[in-house]
Amino acid sequence: MDITDTAQQIVSGDRRALARAITLVESGRADHRAQAAELLGALPRDRQALRIGLSGTPGVGKSTFIESFGMMLTGQGMRVAVLAVDPSSARSGGSILGDKTRMDRLARDPNAFIRPSPSQTHLGGVARRTREAVALCEAAGFDVVLIETVGVGQSETVVAQMADLFLLLLAPAGGDELQGVKRGIMEMADVILINKADGDLKATATRTCADYASALRLLRKRPQDPAGFPKAMMVSALEDTGLNAAWDTLQELAGWRRENGFFDRTRAEQAQYWFEQDVRAALLAQLDEREARANMARLGAEVARGDTDPALAAQQMLAALGFNRR
Amino acid sequence: MDITDTAQQIVSGDRRALARAITLVESGRADHRAQAAELLGALPRDRQALRIGLSGTPGVGKSTFIESFGMMLTGQGMRVAVLAVDPSSARSGGSILGDKTRMDRLARDPNAFIRPSPSQTHLGGVARRTREAVALCEAAGFDVVLIETVGVGQSETVVAQMADLFLLLLAPAGGDELQGVKRGIMEMADVILINKADGDLKATATRTCADYASALRLLRKRPQDPAGFPKAMMVSALEDTGLNAAWDTLQELAGWRRENGFFDRTRAEQAQYWFEQDVRAALLAQLDEREARANMARLGAEVARGDTDPALAAQQMLAALGFNRR
Repeated sequence: MDITDTAQQIVSGDRRALARAITLVESGRADHRAQAAELLGALPRDRQALRIGLSGTPGVGKSTFIESFGMMLTGQGMRVAVLAVDPSSARSGGSILGDKTRMDRLARDPNAFIRPSPSQTHLGGVARRTREAVALCEAAGFDVVLIETVGVGQSETVVAQMADLFLLLLAPAGGDELQGVKRGIMEMADVILINKADGDLKATATRTCADYASALRLLRKRPQDPAGFPKAMMVSALEDTGLNAAWDTLQELAGWRRENGFFDRTRAEQAQYWFEQDVRAALLAQLDEREARANMARLGAEVARGDTDPALAAQQMLAALGFNRR
Repeated sequence: MDITDTAQQIVSGDRRALARAITLVESGRADHRAQAAELLGALPRDRQALRIGLSGTPGVGKSTFIESFGMMLTGQGMRVAVLAVDPSSARSGGSILGDKTRMDRLARDPNAFIRPSPSQTHLGGVARRTREAVALCEAAGFDVVLIETVGVGQSETVVAQMADLFLLLLAPAGGDELQGVKRGIMEMADVILINKADGDLKATATRTCADYASALRLLRKRPQDPAGFPKAMMVSALEDTGLNAAWDTLQELAGWRRENGFFDRTRAEQAQYWFEQDVRAALLAQLDEREARANMARLGAEVARGDTDPALAAQQMLAALGFNRR
């Protein structure tokens, strides 16, 4: 892959170049990692998409929401990319966005780009690659990048590290109030959307929305929130209602954060976080190479048999890695 | 420090040599780390102490218990070492065992050795050094090594990685049943001791003990537990009652685990864990060196300003560390 050419193709809106570049950043091979870094470094840094994290447990209608929301945005002339961070794919090899037919109208929209979550052995790897895919989509001129995940906690933290805004999608539910949503996820949300506010569920949705609005008022006020935020709202992805209001709300929040410096500050902190994570991951990746794995196994077995002390074996391992202690 | 001499002195029971060696393993300096590893590797590996982890929230009478329990053991001719893993010392610079006067009888006992927790910047560092201090005490011929910590969760996990048995000390408490003890800590305990089973508290202690005995029966049975374990018992460190029974119980459990292979298997797994932790910590420690810190700060600032991509900056950092991607 020619880096300069690929960078230019991505910037010019070439979808196949973008898809190839995402495949490159998803690769675990060391030479691919180096190429990916070079490509990311070669991209222009003057384009900025609104990066929206989106979480919601299965069954809340996330795909339907993304499709309706995405279609509304492309209908207004915007270009929308949808990516996924899926901790379950780490286990199953599957992918929450693998089945593009879940949102086939959006998938066929020339102004939309949908990319399933990479299959990876651990969340950290998926996370880094998704962060890089976001950067590629941004350089490709998308106006909005939606980063989807499922509501299990750890993956939300990761998505929050690459998003400007965080949306939590919930279903209407009577009585059991907080639906087992972890407090940590609640605290991350900028806007909670109660989906399925239609038909028989409308009354329940209204009550659920009021419940969450109260719950949000009890949360500690964050400096990056203007008055009235975090906010709970109702939408119906099925009936296409509330989507415009939700988008206006997100824009209002993003605008306020831009004006008050929080937007850029958060991005700066996030970039530093990913830089540090990348360095650490690369240092530890030395242990994944074939010879290193063999040495770790051999020394680990000696240690387990009690033939040597863990600290001494560790020094021997470091020496085998060509590592000279100063 | 001459490694061979020091190793011999430790084995011969020289307390000052032991104290010096512990100071060496507590040092963060790279040359000290290498010396410490050499020393640990030079020690004979045929001596084995019973390593007992001990946790309990402040106020349960942990110091009094350790003193009474330790005096009972030395009274039976055993040699006892007391070490500490103290996550709070990481923050405050203080130390839970810093004040030896808390257990001044035991501190003056020639068959006891008390070592406060090292002050460290993070729990991982404290943990590794305590693990190494345990190994030194073992080579010095101590029969029992008590590793004390406070009941906050994370430090218990760390202590469980270096102990053969895990004791949880609790105070008598009416009504509120589980005293906010985290389930994870409960699940780690081999024996729960209800302390202060004396005077006015005796009836409450009896009830508390029964409550915990029930709670323990509800926990998932672990393969490393013989019938009747984990167990809840009463002690009074003040009146010196129940201490012998507790010791007999610990010995019974250790004996059963030895016979059934769990004792050695756990030690083997622990040794491998520390080996792997040591290797990882050493790889990441490259970032703590002065030049590396300066480079991290410089590249981190570029990334934060948006001048470059995190992935590219990470590659530059790795190059600065003299790291060639294969």
